[in-house]
Order: sequence, then structure tokens, then C-alpha cells
Amino acid sequence: MISVKIAIDRKREGGALETGEIREIVERFSAGDIPDYQMSALAMAICCRGMDERETADLTDAMTDSGERIEWEGPSADKHSTGGVGDKISFLCQSIACACGVKVPSLTGRALGLTGGTADKLETIPGFNAALSLDEMRDVVERVGMAMTVQTAEIAPADRKLYALRDVTGTVASIPLITASILSKKIAEGAGTLVFDVKRGLGAFMKTQEEAEALAASLVAGARRLGRKADAVVSDMDAPLGFAVGNANEVAEALAALGSPRFAKGRRIPEDVISLSLDLARRMVSLALSISPEEARAMCEERLRSGAALAKFEAMVAAQGGDLDAFERLLLRPVHKFTVQSAKSGVVRSIDASVVAKVALALGAGREKAGDAIDPLAGVTLALSRGERACVGSPLATITCSKSPDRLEPLAGEIMGAFGF
Amino acid sequence: MISVKIAIDRKREGGALETGEIREIVERFSAGDIPDYQMSALAMAICCRGMDERETADLTDAMTDSGERIEWEGPSADKHSTGGVGDKISFLCQSIACACGVKVPSLTGRALGLTGGTADKLETIPGFNAALSLDEMRDVVERVGMAMTVQTAEIAPADRKLYALRDVTGTVASIPLITASILSKKIAEGAGTLVFDVKRGLGAFMKTQEEAEALAASLVAGARRLGRKADAVVSDMDAPLGFAVGNANEVAEALAALGSPRFAKGRRIPEDVISLSLDLARRMVSLALSISPEEARAMCEERLRSGAALAKFEAMVAAQGGDLDAFERLLLRPVHKFTVQSAKSGVVRSIDASVVAKVALALGAGREKAGDAIDPLAGVTLALSRGERACVGSPLATITCSKSPDRLEPLAGEIMGAFGF
Repeated sequence: MISVKIAIDRKREGGALETGEIREIVERFSAGDIPDYQMSALAMAICCRGMDERETADLTDAMTDSGERIEWEGPSADKHSTGGVGDKISFLCQSIACACGVKVPSLTGRALGLTGGTADKLETIPGFNAALSLDEMRDVVERVGMAMTVQTAEIAPADRKLYALRDVTGTVASIPLITASILSKKIAEGAGTLVFDVKRGLGAFMKTQEEAEALAASLVAGARRLGRKADAVVSDMDAPLGFAVGNANEVAEALAALGSPRFAKGRRIPEDVISLSLDLARRMVSLALSISPEEARAMCEERLRSGAALAKFEAMVAAQGGDLDAFERLLLRPVHKFTVQSAKSGVVRSIDASVVAKVALALGAGREKAGDAIDPLAGVTLALSRGERACVGSPLATITCSKSPDRLEPLAGEIMGAFGF
Repeated sequence: MISVKIAIDRKREGGALETGEIREIVERFSAGDIPDYQMSALAMAICCRGMDERETADLTDAMTDSGERIEWEGPSADKHSTGGVGDKISFLCQSIACACGVKVPSLTGRALGLTGGTADKLETIPGFNAALSLDEMRDVVERVGMAMTVQTAEIAPADRKLYALRDVTGTVASIPLITASILSKKIAEGAGTLVFDVKRGLGAFMKTQEEAEALAASLVAGARRLGRKADAVVSDMDAPLGFAVGNANEVAEALAALGSPRFAKGRRIPEDVISLSLDLARRMVSLALSISPEEARAMCEERLRSGAALAKFEAMVAAQGGDLDAFERLLLRPVHKFTVQSAKSGVVRSIDASVVAKVALALGAGREKAGDAIDPLAGVTLALSRGERACVGSPLATITCSKSPDRLEPLAGEIMGAFGF
């Protein structure tokens, strides 16, 4: 048995943890044999002193081994985003890759704080089951080619336990620990290719280009060490992605962008969402199918244009019990609404994603704490994107919620403040 | 109420904790309102990022305020050692300073691991009470001028709680945290002058001159910020101090060095112990009485030579219930003994204090864990000091214990290995 204290001492002094040490620490921590106060001290030492690529991969591997590992036959890929505002990229990018013949087993998350949750967004589709068992997930992927479901308790339980501790001990901000947390789940999920969308900016965890690039490099290096093909993009999150920020409105916007005529009605097509989705999908497909970037790019564009990607998304929704007709009716349900009108005229230079996220959260689109209910129809729909011109009195955004109409007007003021001209 | 998480985040990023934050954290941690896992993460962040002088003084002050503060009228002083092997300096230095007219209220510690305990050594004197209440301590100091007793539960309880956590979370090695731990108790003790003997070397916590000097500077700066006169010495702890390492044998050696004829019989007088004791006592007296170093030095030498210091030590022992006649008889009690003979001839260049300490611990002179019993007669008595010549077969040391005579021979081999020629 290794000494946890000696391991902590070494890390505090800036040394490296050994492979066997890391494995034993993860196993004993999972089993409750290492007290939280030692684990949090070690986590802080890692925050301050770092871990090298080998240690990070070892930690990832040990956390993956704390739970189940899924395996897939044939080319498979997944895309992971570090979390943005209005981030509905997965709906497009995963569907496009799937339509190119790549299996996409996608484990997603729930909303917490300012971060939206892909699973919560999908669950606004009546009947949609975003909490498949591993067997159900395997079945959906085999039948449709893709599935989107929340991480189950069987996947990397050590990560869940460690993350809960890091969350209350100021030890989240560490690139090696963030890498191991993200990767342990993605490696367990089994996709042969992993593409990371690392967000950088006002609405992201990583505020600077340097931090985002460091995390992207760490994720790619870790995934490769653990036998996966990997690529990463650092993408802008100063302003929200697309026009819709919320839950149902984001799914509808994604459907519109995928080319669904009935959901396109009355909506602006978000060029930034399509562009980023194609870029990420191209990387997934190129690596998974071992074809050139140009070939992959052409294939992705064709699958989006032809409606093949939309068909995959619709098939996945149906396979997971979702009813898009009922979803269309849901979107027509009366809600409390307020249109924010511009007090200035000029070209929109910036739309602060963090402010928009806070407003969406306050409207009921997110969760203050785990377990809170989400209002599917709450959210913000922007009328303009950066570079477009506003006049005095022209609409900047519409904000909606199902309850608490008295919240709308004060929040409208905050949305106004998010715009820079 | 401040946010502990925000404080941890700031410290992790290398920022400073505010005075009010530090006070509230200490108060709430003492009251059990901050969980150990947060406190250990904060302690690790402090280990890695440090604290400045103001923060260190604030932490000290808050920990002192978690318990009682004693006050003294007239000049008072104490000397604190960071812990060495064969360190019986307090018996001489405190007695000399007391004989110069300085009150010496000395709170001491117990043995743990390789560190000897002044209180344990004194308790080998039959009847000696090393666990006075604060009232009893005040009474002994008023009557005799000095007292030596273990820190009670009323003194800096927050330090005790924090130290126990640091001990198991790899967060001991931090100069600001070590400073606050030492100082909070010394400030509570109330002495107007504090002199620190920071040990450096093989038998000390601080291995290098730089570390030891940094701790000495931190202790002096902290004490001065908190209104005390302060001075410090970095002293060599590569080899044991004096010839005796143990408990009763150390007290006897100190009595011999203080000039007691009955305890000097058959013992070598340790010049290094006398020299360091006079240096430290001179600093205490010079600061406490506001006299020149030369004047203080002369006074200290006179008090030692005249037997005034011995008289103070004997009076203190008597006031705390100790019986030196019974102690003399104790030293004559039969014990298991082994004389280590030199296998080489040459000049002794080094005597590794850490090896001698481990042997003394293995013989029963120390404690593996708090609460273990101590064998008063177990220990090592060196026959030579550094710079003296050994011949093949001449004695290097005698090792003794009351139980387990079969341990003696293997430990003798280790003592041999401690000597470098």
C-alpha cells in the first residue's frame, strides 16, 4: 500500500506522482478509504504544481476504470464542448457526422449554473428519454447510428466523487484535473475519435486564448495517449452561439439550421452555428473514416444540405421516444414575453454571453443547484448578431418565461446592457 | 459572512487573504463550521503560494485569540527551539535568564516521532508536575521566576486543531503556517521577549541554511508585528547537542552543565550546550532588560558560573513537585546497557543526529504516536564529540533501555553507522 502523505508531499514539492500511486489513490478514494481532507489537499497541490501528460493520462485511465467501459465496432466519434451559451452545436455536428457513416455515442450533461445542458434541451421534446441505460444506448446507436444521453452512474464514478469535492474546495481550476475529468468519461464512452470544442471568452470557463489553447492541447494529448484519435478547436464564446439561448428555443433553432422547414418558419438561420458545426463534424469524420479534411468537409456539407443530417437527428429523437409534432405544439404554447428595444442606434459590436446566460438562468432556463426544475420555454432569443445594425426602437431580443412575468422587465434592462455598439 | 471558497480561490491564484477573512476562517474552523476538506485545501494553497508577513501575523493573532492570553508584569522572556536531538538547552538558557532577573514562563512540548519533549524529560524527575494549570503556572513564576509546563488546552486551541489536520494532509512544510503555529502559543504565553533557536541540519526539520534563515526571519518579523521584542539564532543540528540523547540522561547532563557537582560525577561537560545556552540567554536578557549584548553576556556568564542559574533550576523543579534526590537514585537504577565500540580509528567528523534520534526512539526514549509511554532511562550517551579521536575498540557511545535488551545489539550497529571519520 502506498503512502498518501508521501504522495501529497511529493506533489507539493513539484514532483510527479507514479502510475501505481495514482491508480491506488483513485481506487482507495472511490472506496472511501482516503478521507476527503487528504484528497482535497492533494487536489490543491495538483492545482498549484500541475501534472505532466503521463500523470494526467494515468489519472484519466484510473478514473475511467472506476466504472464501465463501452466498446463500439466500426468508426465512431464524439464531440465534446467545454460549455458555452446558446451552444446547440452537438445537435448539428453529431447528426452530420452520423450521416457520414460514423457512429456517435454521445454522453451529455445537464444544466448547472450558467452552463446549459444538452440533455435538458433535448428533454423539452415531449417523450424524449435523455437518461438511457447503457443497454438502451447501445441499442439506439446500433439502430440509428447516434444517441444522446446523460452519463449514467456506471460511467467514471470516481470522477463524479472527485468533482463534487473539487467543487467545494476551490480545486476546479486545474488543466490536468479538468482534462482527466472530461476525458475519463469520454474514454469510457468508447468513441474511437474525440473532437474537443474548447470555448474561450466572456461566456466560457476559460477566459483567455492561452488558457483555452492549453486545455485543448492537454485534452488532445491525453486522448492520444489513451489510444484515441483526437483533435480540438478553440472557439469564441464572447457572444452567444446563434440567436436562441434557453432550452426548447435552442432545439428549434438547431432543427431550423439542420434544414427542417417547419422549425425554420419565423426563425433566423444561425450562420455561426452552422459554420462551427461543420468545422467540428469535418474533424470527426476525417479522423474516424481516415479521409482527407477536404473530402470530409465536402461530405459533411452534402449531408447537411441534403437533409441526411436532419433525418439522423429526427431518427435519434424518435428512437429515444421524442415526439417532434408535440414539440412543435409546445413551441406555440402561450408564454410571458417581453421584447427588448434598442435605446441606441449603431452597429452591434458585442453581446456579452455571460450577461445573456445570467438572464436566461434568472428566467428559469437553468439550474441554480442540481435537481432544480427547468422551464422549457424560458430563455432569450436575440434579434441581431454582431456586426448588424440596430436603430432606436428596433428589437434587440425577446425574453420569455412560463412563470413570474414581473421578472421580465428588469431582466430586459440587463439584456440591453449586454449589447455594445 | 465571508466565502471560504472565494478565499481559497484567491490564495490558489497567489493573492493575499484579508485580515477579516483570516479571523473568520480561524473562528469558524475552531467552531467546526468549516469542514476539514476545505481547510486542508486552503492549507495546501498556503503551502504552495505562501503568505506575506501581514497575513502570517493575522493568522497568528486569530489563533492566539482562540484561547487564553497570559500577562506578566515586569521583564519576561522565553526561548523557543524548533526541535533538535539532545536539545536540553532550555534547562540552562531559561535558568540563566531567570537568574538575571527576567521572568521565564515557558510552555513546552512533548516528544513525538524523532522530536524529544522538554516536558517528558522533566517528568523523569520523580514528582515533577509538567502539566500545571494556568493558575499554578502563574504562581510558580511569581515565586521562583520561571516555570516549565506543557501547553494547556486553554492555549491557542485553534492551532492544535489546525496542526492535527496539517499533520495528515502534507501541509506542515510551510514557513508561514509553521510561524503562526509556533507564535500563536508563544504570544498567548505572554513573554515580552521571544528568542528563537531555529535548528538546521540532519536532525532538524529545516535541512538547509536558507530554509532555517527564512523561518527565523519569519518568526522574528511576526513576533515584532505582534508587539514583542524578538531575536533568533540558526544553530547547527547535524550532530546531537551534548553527549546525552534521551530523557533522564539529558536532564542529568543539563544539571552537570549548570554546575551541580553530584550530577557532574562521571559525566562529560558539554561545551556546545553551554555555549549555545549562553548565546540564547544573552539575547533574552539583553532584550528583556534593555541592556547591551556585552553587559547581558557578562551577566549570564556570571549567573552560570556562580551557581545562581542552577539554584533557579532547582527551585523551579522543587516548586513543581520534583525531587532531585529521588532523581539521583533513579539514575543509579540498573538498566540494560550496551557499549558501542569503534571498528575504525580516526577523527570523528560527523555524528548523524537523525540516526541517533531514530535509535533513541527505537530504544523507547520517544513516542511513535501521541499517548505512548516513554522509558525514562532509555537513550544514547555519546562518548565522543566531533573533532575527537577514536581508536579501534574505544567506546563511541553507550545505549540503554529498561526493557527489550535484545534490541540493543542491532541498534548498536546503527549508532556505529552514525559516525563518520
